[in-house]
Amino acid sequence: MPEFNLKSYLAERKQLIDAALEKIFPVPAGLQKQVVEASRYSLFAGGKRLRPILCLAAADVAGGTLDPVIPAACALEMVHTYSLIHDDLPAMDNDDFRRGVPTNHKVYGEAIAVLAGDALLTEAFEFLAASADDGVPAKKVVDVIRIMVKASGYRGMIGGQVIDLECENRKVDLATVEYMHIHKTGALLSASLEIGAILGGGDSVLITSMRNFGHHFGLAFQITDDLLDVEGDAAVMGKKPGSDAAKNKMTYPALLGLAQSKEAAREHVNQALLALASFGEAAEPLRAIAQYLLVRKA
Amino acid sequence: MPEFNLKSYLAERKQLIDAALEKIFPVPAGLQKQVVEASRYSLFAGGKRLRPILCLAAADVAGGTLDPVIPAACALEMVHTYSLIHDDLPAMDNDDFRRGVPTNHKVYGEAIAVLAGDALLTEAFEFLAASADDGVPAKKVVDVIRIMVKASGYRGMIGGQVIDLECENRKVDLATVEYMHIHKTGALLSASLEIGAILGGGDSVLITSMRNFGHHFGLAFQITDDLLDVEGDAAVMGKKPGSDAAKNKMTYPALLGLAQSKEAAREHVNQALLALASFGEAAEPLRAIAQYLLVRKA
Repeated sequence: MPEFNLKSYLAERKQLIDAALEKIFPVPAGLQKQVVEASRYSLFAGGKRLRPILCLAAADVAGGTLDPVIPAACALEMVHTYSLIHDDLPAMDNDDFRRGVPTNHKVYGEAIAVLAGDALLTEAFEFLAASADDGVPAKKVVDVIRIMVKASGYRGMIGGQVIDLECENRKVDLATVEYMHIHKTGALLSASLEIGAILGGGDSVLITSMRNFGHHFGLAFQITDDLLDVEGDAAVMGKKPGSDAAKNKMTYPALLGLAQSKEAAREHVNQALLALASFGEAAEPLRAIAQYLLVRKA
Repeated sequence: MPEFNLKSYLAERKQLIDAALEKIFPVPAGLQKQVVEASRYSLFAGGKRLRPILCLAAADVAGGTLDPVIPAACALEMVHTYSLIHDDLPAMDNDDFRRGVPTNHKVYGEAIAVLAGDALLTEAFEFLAASADDGVPAKKVVDVIRIMVKASGYRGMIGGQVIDLECENRKVDLATVEYMHIHKTGALLSASLEIGAILGGGDSVLITSMRNFGHHFGLAFQITDDLLDVEGDAAVMGKKPGSDAAKNKMTYPALLGLAQSKEAAREHVNQALLALASFGEAAEPLRAIAQYLLVRKA
């Protein structure tokens, strides 16, 4: 077997997602076009499409065809993008740049940025619901919608963001930081895998394995993200490192130190790989993506 | 037949909705409770529950039992409330009071207000999806979710809000004002009736009639809302009249004058009643609510 080429795999899948997003979320003709243009500005601002890629990769493990999974994969990216637009607002993290380009409110103003986020979140549910057009049983579509709500609402991502806001400038323990990250980033990453597994036709064992993979992947992702903010290269990341420290955010390196944080990341990657143990070659992309976290530069 | 008592009907239905909202959206135990408290602050800040009441009334016309419709009725109120929280933000309409009490961001700060709105919008889809637990076929649930997205996203309410922002301090024609209102308020009102009709088991003729009723009801509602802002009593409304004029908002009275605006409201109420012509006593509440618009004081 030739070695799995992660770089070309990611590039190919990113292209697939970009094309699908372009097609399903075009600029409308009417007076409402400004808000969609604003939504699209952030949607096409250089995201790596990690959540859609994980979603499709999980569907591959389940052995499903990708067509019925693509709208949901797009929905995951839309929810992720909405969260970035709102997180960047002056009242929240007050970030002027993301991925090397001005944030949404710097380009369109705060009012449109709020609405552009709202529009992405709302429309994401259209694309989840649209899976029903592609032959996915409506019962599964409803299940997937509820998983998305749980992962992105106050029980997931929004809850994590609230905890993040509350913890700024405050000493918190590792358990709280982990709890925050499981909600703020972990929940949507884990849901990406679970949704892919369901729409790909996986059985309950496979779905649970994907959720477990997602849990550990999410933590490893966040720890390595924190590490990049300490050790990363601004030119590669498209943003300045040190922003967490400047904002007094509680991070893994701040609490555990660099060496122990790296060890924790390795441990979670190992746990993620363990969740894939019973799957063969079809899980190779997920294995490669998980291992890549330990050497990521952006 | 005794005359229909609208006042006690509305009070009874409001109580039903309040109790359901209280039950399905409680404060959670975890660290995320602050955002839910903020969401609930606005959710229980004196709303008339018009959208849920219209939804249940449409289900009554369809002859359905109300239990499977109640979660969706709650979802409509949650989407309406989220839109008010975000519209009130300093970057949008910058309102300090609504219904006589401080707006969400005045109490919880802007960051939490953004997230409280996001949480309400997200969780609304859980309660639409939850209809499937009450025996509604999953296919119908998916249809209802797509109607909600269309009515509340850029093709509906958000689109209307964007047009509203664009039209401030600018001369626009009546067609644009009408287009704005059909999107900003009409779409969700109309969807409330359509969703009730579907979940109540109505056939396609009934569903179309409810949508038509909603269209004209929505316009009559907005015109009478504009009229209240000119002629209303601050003590009854819980907000100062004249805020549209102060913000240079384009309204029906500003474009048509008072007399012609009242005539337009009457005309839309008549059209709304016409849409109910083939329904008997079961449509009496909807008729009474529509006629009430012409004498509303708040």
